[in-house]
Amino acid sequence: MVILPTGLEERGDVRRETDPRSAGTLFQLIRDGRPRTRADLAAVTGFARPTVAARIDELLGSGLIVPAGEASSTGGRPPATFAFNPGARIILAADLGVSHGRLAITDLASTVLSERSLEIAIADGPEVVLDAVTTALCDMVEELGRPVSDVAGVGIGLPGPVEHRLGRAISPPIMPGWDGFDVPGHVARTLPTPVLVDNDVNIMALGEHAARWQDVKDLVFIKIATGIGAGIISDGELRRGALGAAGDLGHIAVPRGRQIPCRCGNVGCLEALASGLAVVESLRAQGVDIQRTAQIVDLVRSGNITASQTVRQAGRDIGDVVAGCVNLLNPSVIVIGGIVSEVGEHLLAGIREVVYSRSLPLATQHLRIVASQTEGRAGVLGASQMVSQQVLSAPAIDQLLVKS
Amino acid sequence: MVILPTGLEERGDVRRETDPRSAGTLFQLIRDGRPRTRADLAAVTGFARPTVAARIDELLGSGLIVPAGEASSTGGRPPATFAFNPGARIILAADLGVSHGRLAITDLASTVLSERSLEIAIADGPEVVLDAVTTALCDMVEELGRPVSDVAGVGIGLPGPVEHRLGRAISPPIMPGWDGFDVPGHVARTLPTPVLVDNDVNIMALGEHAARWQDVKDLVFIKIATGIGAGIISDGELRRGALGAAGDLGHIAVPRGRQIPCRCGNVGCLEALASGLAVVESLRAQGVDIQRTAQIVDLVRSGNITASQTVRQAGRDIGDVVAGCVNLLNPSVIVIGGIVSEVGEHLLAGIREVVYSRSLPLATQHLRIVASQTEGRAGVLGASQMVSQQVLSAPAIDQLLVKS
Repeated sequence: MVILPTGLEERGDVRRETDPRSAGTLFQLIRDGRPRTRADLAAVTGFARPTVAARIDELLGSGLIVPAGEASSTGGRPPATFAFNPGARIILAADLGVSHGRLAITDLASTVLSERSLEIAIADGPEVVLDAVTTALCDMVEELGRPVSDVAGVGIGLPGPVEHRLGRAISPPIMPGWDGFDVPGHVARTLPTPVLVDNDVNIMALGEHAARWQDVKDLVFIKIATGIGAGIISDGELRRGALGAAGDLGHIAVPRGRQIPCRCGNVGCLEALASGLAVVESLRAQGVDIQRTAQIVDLVRSGNITASQTVRQAGRDIGDVVAGCVNLLNPSVIVIGGIVSEVGEHLLAGIREVVYSRSLPLATQHLRIVASQTEGRAGVLGASQMVSQQVLSAPAIDQLLVKS
Repeated sequence: MVILPTGLEERGDVRRETDPRSAGTLFQLIRDGRPRTRADLAAVTGFARPTVAARIDELLGSGLIVPAGEASSTGGRPPATFAFNPGARIILAADLGVSHGRLAITDLASTVLSERSLEIAIADGPEVVLDAVTTALCDMVEELGRPVSDVAGVGIGLPGPVEHRLGRAISPPIMPGWDGFDVPGHVARTLPTPVLVDNDVNIMALGEHAARWQDVKDLVFIKIATGIGAGIISDGELRRGALGAAGDLGHIAVPRGRQIPCRCGNVGCLEALASGLAVVESLRAQGVDIQRTAQIVDLVRSGNITASQTVRQAGRDIGDVVAGCVNLLNPSVIVIGGIVSEVGEHLLAGIREVVYSRSLPLATQHLRIVASQTEGRAGVLGASQMVSQQVLSAPAIDQLLVKS
């Protein structure tokens, strides 16, 4: 029955969260990008003017805010305004797949400053892979001409279930050696900053949401690549479930698949019918010469009818599961991403066909089913976003200023 | 990219939410039931001692807190402590079904003080039904010997989709005349207090969660009665989806049902196979003499094998859909409620059989699938909870004290 305001659960935290003198609280107000005067901030927070002035000086000292010119005045000397300075620090982001990694450096507002691709083999295990990633990231920081001390944090997406709180992969099916490995601990040996880890699809949902759908509160991001998975945003926040395993669309049974075996050991899973791997296998069985998932996109684009039809059927199978998601979660936007989604309308058409025939009218009346609009960057944008959410939170800012 | 603390979106709100002198903030701390001294409260909040003293006096005046004896002291006069007084006001709760309503009066901690059943016909339309409900509730208030001015708010659950923010049913399939009807406006003519409305399954999830599973953050409540629906708690809060339509399990397709027509106009929906209505029809087709959903429970309890087998198969069909929920949401608890759930283990066994064979090991390793433990009261408990969450929130308390 007891509902306390966020962060008030524990006596030790209460003081920091509600401390009216907190620089972190002022920073959250300045962070929206609108320049504010000291008087604005005092009025909005109810803090005393001298308190505001002292905290503004601390924040200016940290570089996190900068003078943003003068406000208009009705007479006398116009007051100075202050604004968030996203360039003060940098965030390192890595979106790791089975055989490929995408790396980026962003500023604190998740604007990409530098990007790089990296061939990896996730099966080489965490030490080999993470060392390659940190080496490449450090290279990029140097290329950018920034000192390593400018790094505010590192965000990493992994292609398997992750216990986000601890930053460890848990029972990942395709990542030998990673189960329970302390990713933040290992990375922080080279980059001694906060290191945050999540499942790749979760960070893609976060990235797409922050970059293109900030006004939408309920969004599901579905990644269709070698496998199939989803990241769920409800009421504006990523929902990970009890063990971080939420969004596992790929192993929901679909009607067409009753007897088809899946690599998970079950039969009839969506992945066994409609993942990139399943489409490649189906095309091969139909006599098409194809090796890798990425080639599906080339075949469809070049007008191969067998490929288009197979992709459309995969879309319908995905639609069967997405229809259930729509009834269950009532999102306003479903974003389809991942390499296979680059085939474009054939896949979306198959998905829409089933969702609009299977979901309830109320749940679909304003529903949009769209392709990802972040050009493959959803993962790195989300990894950056995950870090900025943490390192720019009010308690983190307070801690930063206490230390400095 | 901008993330402000809750409630800081708009300048007008900021002042109230963060005002350090707020009585609402102090009240949230006292509300956990632990007696606190003025000094405790000053230390925890960082507020000045005279501010705390003045706000405590206001809260004592409202009756929402009461003196709770003296704290132990290391010398000198022991300081007075204060505690939440849930008996200060009452909440009226109504859980309305198609043909039956359950009414309750609770205190501010959702303890039931008085209960009543009410035969209704939801199809009589909102005015007839709501007038019968308010008349009965006013009767109950009088019986309890409380003045109507003690009513803090009214919570109502309706058997269809509800736009919670406005308190209106939206396109409810089995509620003629209710579409868009202003429920709070109508009820407040008789009971001029806050009136909150939600879907019946949402409030059941809220009630079961608050009464039995407060420590669990991710819970799905599934109601199996004439129809089938779910209420979803993620990260501790009810998730309603973009239009309040989340949790509509009943119209997700199940493998066994491909050609069976559903009352929604589609085919193969879970409801068409496994709802109370579907089980009754199936039993009749097998020559069993049965009229109403409630009789299923009697038949199974009396050892009717046909009924037990049919219920178990319904459980398996429900399990098919629940397995998808588990993969998608990764809850730690699934509660099965509604009249059909009273058959007990036959239904649960069918559900568990499929969920544990179909869901991923990671998602099921700590999963509990249990029967509702609130003896049919989940709805009224949740309706009460919905009201107390709102009327005891910090801004509502501040407003209350300003008015008085």
